[in-house]
Amino acid sequence: MSKYVAFGKITSHPGQRDALAQILLEAADLMKAYEGCELYIVGTVDDDPDSVWVTEIFKDAEAHKASLALESVQEIIQRGRPLIVGGEQIKLNPLGGKGL
Amino acid sequence: MSKYVAFGKITSHPGQRDALAQILLEAADLMKAYEGCELYIVGTVDDDPDSVWVTEIFKDAEAHKASLALESVQEIIQRGRPLIVGGEQIKLNPLGGKGL
Repeated sequence: MSKYVAFGKITSHPGQRDALAQILLEAADLMKAYEGCELYIVGTVDDDPDSVWVTEIFKDAEAHKASLALESVQEIIQRGRPLIVGGEQIKLNPLGGKGL
Repeated sequence: MSKYVAFGKITSHPGQRDALAQILLEAADLMKAYEGCELYIVGTVDDDPDSVWVTEIFKDAEAHKASLALESVQEIIQRGRPLIVGGEQIKLNPLGGKGL
């Protein structure tokens, strides 16, 4: 099974981006201790004041799915949900490269 | 200076995606020996038969800029250019996370 590589754009209600980013940074902290997660970067882009982007690499799709089932992650998702109006995810089929 | 984190969508002429991906995988091989590059993943997405995506992390913007000036990279860019019709890049302002 190949690695799970994805970047997701999560759009907050106007003015809630930084609060959402803080919650996602908490998720990133959880992922630091989660062996199946190899990369989990939270960031913003200049031309979008309402969105937070998450770049993630997991050992495989199963490791990603299992991370979402963690109670600590579910708690963060519940807290973040009211801040979110929408989102989109770009799921990559990795062909190769450095850091894969 | 913060890390350079970006993902780029490079769109090929119809039917040229795999040829373009091979060229970008050569670039990824070059980046394996380039210390300033921490991640360089080449991949595709299911719903776009013409695009190749590159996910990249460099030590900083200077390391990224210097990589483009390498003769070996310039040679690859010249070879890839005829296959390319367009592209877009999402440059992230990283706030934190795992693997940063």
